[in-house]
Amino acid sequence: MDLKFEKYMNLALIEARKAYDLNEVPVGAVVVYKDNIIGSGFNKREITNNALAHAEIIAINEACKNLNSWRLIDCDIYITLEPCPMCVGAIINSRIKKIIYGAQDFKSGSLGSVFNIFDFKFNHKPEIISGVLETKSASLLKDFFSKLRLDKLK
Amino acid sequence: MDLKFEKYMNLALIEARKAYDLNEVPVGAVVVYKDNIIGSGFNKREITNNALAHAEIIAINEACKNLNSWRLIDCDIYITLEPCPMCVGAIINSRIKKIIYGAQDFKSGSLGSVFNIFDFKFNHKPEIISGVLETKSASLLKDFFSKLRLDKLK
Repeated sequence: MDLKFEKYMNLALIEARKAYDLNEVPVGAVVVYKDNIIGSGFNKREITNNALAHAEIIAINEACKNLNSWRLIDCDIYITLEPCPMCVGAIINSRIKKIIYGAQDFKSGSLGSVFNIFDFKFNHKPEIISGVLETKSASLLKDFFSKLRLDKLK
Repeated sequence: MDLKFEKYMNLALIEARKAYDLNEVPVGAVVVYKDNIIGSGFNKREITNNALAHAEIIAINEACKNLNSWRLIDCDIYITLEPCPMCVGAIINSRIKKIIYGAQDFKSGSLGSVFNIFDFKFNHKPEIISGVLETKSASLLKDFFSKLRLDKLK
């Protein structure tokens, strides 16, 4: 596997841990353009009270601002978790070239888990790499939900 | 048909016309809670250089801020055009109760045109009403694309 994949996924995992530390479901994302991070984000749904505040949306928003363009055509996005329909939709809309993700999401994952959006014809189809640092990403999520259950028992 | 549907769709159409006047693809949306508009938006992709700046995303963002909640459980969204995957995903994530839309979108529409996202099992399924003031909405889009083609010939 391309070493670059692990390097940037580790940066996405650092973002995910920021979410973990704030009691948010730990998901992180980074957008990479010409070997530079031009957008990064972690899930902030609870602290911002905003349904749109997924890691990917925050990272894509920042990337569009940095490139001053809605077209992120030569950009790749690294996400610790398989994206939901909103986030895959944002990736389609921004023409991101490649999606690299870690763990599967059986509740909302739209690249094969609930369904695969690219079974249908949209005007953009990114390349997809799955399972990068999957165990690290899945462990962080598992820890988070265990902690949440324990906190509820207290 | 419920008269309320036409009333709020007309307000979404006013939003769409704001987009038209700024040379943006004319799509508008409003979020309604207890008979009040708590979010409104129109497509601003080009003027903001942002792939996320669809009418629905802008309206949902404003609604979350106004209710100070990511859960828009008793809210309805009125959209002049069938939503794309990103926007249907945002509607799922925000638990909006009902989607009322106008025209069909054969390029990105995710409620039956390209595919129907609710053929798959997500953790929220809003009620869907289609075809409200469809002709008005479709005409506005048709006018826009005719004007665009004419402008290109000049």
